[in-house]
Amino acid sequence: MMVPAAVELGVEIRVLAENEGMSAAIAATAVGDYTDLATVRDFARDVDVLTFDHEHVPQAVLRALVAEGVQVHPGPDALQYAQDKLRMRERLASLGIPMPDWARIETAEELDAFIADHGGHAVVKTARGGYDGKGVRVVTSAAQAEEWFLALDEDGRGGALLAEELVDFRRELAQLVARRPSGDITLWPVVESVQKDGVCAEVIAPAPSAAGREAEMAARIGTTIAEELGVTGVLAVELFETTDERILVNELAMRPHNTGHWTIDGSTTSQFEQHLRAVLDLPFGATGHRDPWSVMVNILGGPTVRTLDEATALAMADQPTAKLHLYGKEPRPGRKVGHITTGGDDLDEVVFQARAAAAFFQD
Amino acid sequence: MMVPAAVELGVEIRVLAENEGMSAAIAATAVGDYTDLATVRDFARDVDVLTFDHEHVPQAVLRALVAEGVQVHPGPDALQYAQDKLRMRERLASLGIPMPDWARIETAEELDAFIADHGGHAVVKTARGGYDGKGVRVVTSAAQAEEWFLALDEDGRGGALLAEELVDFRRELAQLVARRPSGDITLWPVVESVQKDGVCAEVIAPAPSAAGREAEMAARIGTTIAEELGVTGVLAVELFETTDERILVNELAMRPHNTGHWTIDGSTTSQFEQHLRAVLDLPFGATGHRDPWSVMVNILGGPTVRTLDEATALAMADQPTAKLHLYGKEPRPGRKVGHITTGGDDLDEVVFQARAAAAFFQD
Repeated sequence: MMVPAAVELGVEIRVLAENEGMSAAIAATAVGDYTDLATVRDFARDVDVLTFDHEHVPQAVLRALVAEGVQVHPGPDALQYAQDKLRMRERLASLGIPMPDWARIETAEELDAFIADHGGHAVVKTARGGYDGKGVRVVTSAAQAEEWFLALDEDGRGGALLAEELVDFRRELAQLVARRPSGDITLWPVVESVQKDGVCAEVIAPAPSAAGREAEMAARIGTTIAEELGVTGVLAVELFETTDERILVNELAMRPHNTGHWTIDGSTTSQFEQHLRAVLDLPFGATGHRDPWSVMVNILGGPTVRTLDEATALAMADQPTAKLHLYGKEPRPGRKVGHITTGGDDLDEVVFQARAAAAFFQD
Repeated sequence: MMVPAAVELGVEIRVLAENEGMSAAIAATAVGDYTDLATVRDFARDVDVLTFDHEHVPQAVLRALVAEGVQVHPGPDALQYAQDKLRMRERLASLGIPMPDWARIETAEELDAFIADHGGHAVVKTARGGYDGKGVRVVTSAAQAEEWFLALDEDGRGGALLAEELVDFRRELAQLVARRPSGDITLWPVVESVQKDGVCAEVIAPAPSAAGREAEMAARIGTTIAEELGVTGVLAVELFETTDERILVNELAMRPHNTGHWTIDGSTTSQFEQHLRAVLDLPFGATGHRDPWSVMVNILGGPTVRTLDEATALAMADQPTAKLHLYGKEPRPGRKVGHITTGGDDLDEVVFQARAAAAFFQD
């Protein structure tokens, strides 16, 4: 989704992809292993700035490139906090950012103690590699995370798990921020994110009834994290709004994020264009919303009876104002194969249109 | 500019380009001669639908492909009227479409007679190959088009020039239409197009004070042409609004057109997305405008003292709500290297912002 923004700005984009199939839309794409320094170094030779659409490029690779003078945004100093959830919790704690209760867990005994202290349950997370609900588990006893402890032992590098209290939240919010290397910061309005089975299903922008205190708190948290962690590019801060009206940081992502896809159609400047402006250290575009309400619904899995083409034609015919985005991926259970954004004055109507269009993909 | 729309729709796009330099943003691009049947046939083998961003693919090539079963949109039967201005005038005349007075001119004597009948001047056009003011000349005597007559003689294929009355027009309008193979038609609001030196410089959408009779006439003309000529894809009809309040057809283009670039940011569905939907025979997207006013200003030539990158950064800093589109072309006098679109409630403000941003590229 960065490609359309790059084409419009006349920015030549090159992609180091994991495999051939990802290159359909993109010229000058290299295929290779992003964990291999020589591969990434070769790729970096032909670009002005290196950026990412995931957080998994190893610190060692990033630090070697920076040492060699490659422009890397976000840089490894910032990215480590999006790569390792324990480091993130430690760092945000030192900044006084509100978070769920959490603990570094090395043994089953520590986890059982944490569970006992937190009402008989806890959310356990692997520090690295999780996304979309993977590497996250709600447990009532350490035995339910047994293989994660075994993996820690086998790894033998002094790793640990992260335990968090199971937050009694009213809803989930997300604050999208962008920051330039020169320090400028820009924010989009805080949004509501509706999760299903640990995966983002819908986003409402802006978050209803959040114009006052919640929006201010979310903006302050997002700004503090972007500045203190030295983020360059887009930062998404996933938040809980608790039943007792606190705003707590759930997760961080240092890249354009699913909770910001609505900006492609709903904001003057999309998160993808803003990310490009940020990593190129160009002045930011305006982040006002184009419609009073925008709603984004993910297309998860895709149709099973119909073909994707049939679903597309039906959705287009039924909802001519809906903006349909398809990722060129084969439908597969749970896979994000696209999203739909609608906008307008009446939230109920906007939600209806987005869901009505998405329904054709959920036959 | 078709690429971003294709990527968002998950449509794989392939391009037969004239030369290597055009392929930067696009994968699976072939380079070759679009006038050579074997080249185009080879290219067409891997695509579902063939379409164009100019009108210069020869009729013989197009007709051979259609005979072989290739889906070509717009097809040669329609495209001939965008390729040959004399055929266009003849065909529109048979449909009773309002036009400037015109004549088929084979000799200097015929042109001088036409000039004498039309107040001492005429617009002379070559039937083929003209664009952006090229192949168009205002003359007061046939001698001023002497080399065009010589070229006709040398060509020896019974060609002719087109003479048109010099229309006393108040302003220029453009009506953008899209039509599907299955017959559906959709229209954007008629726009005002401001030309400088024969080249489109600015577009105001919708055309001010044209909501009533002018808009209806423009829509009727656009619909009639699209239907009667069997256009598939986007059709742009350039129009004169005369000082005596007639609407006359000036030129046709059967592809996304400069007068429709505002739709990328200003319409729910851009002309590029709609063109793709049309040639794939998918249902149309809504064509309502996203802002009460949109203004598009072309970046012609580009900066000379500043670099393009410097001008870009200055324009972005000065006008954060302006949408900047750069084509990745080297600045050169008169060359269209990009455009800027602004939108909002107050036309004066919207025009100011677009011109202010564009000014950085005209140092």
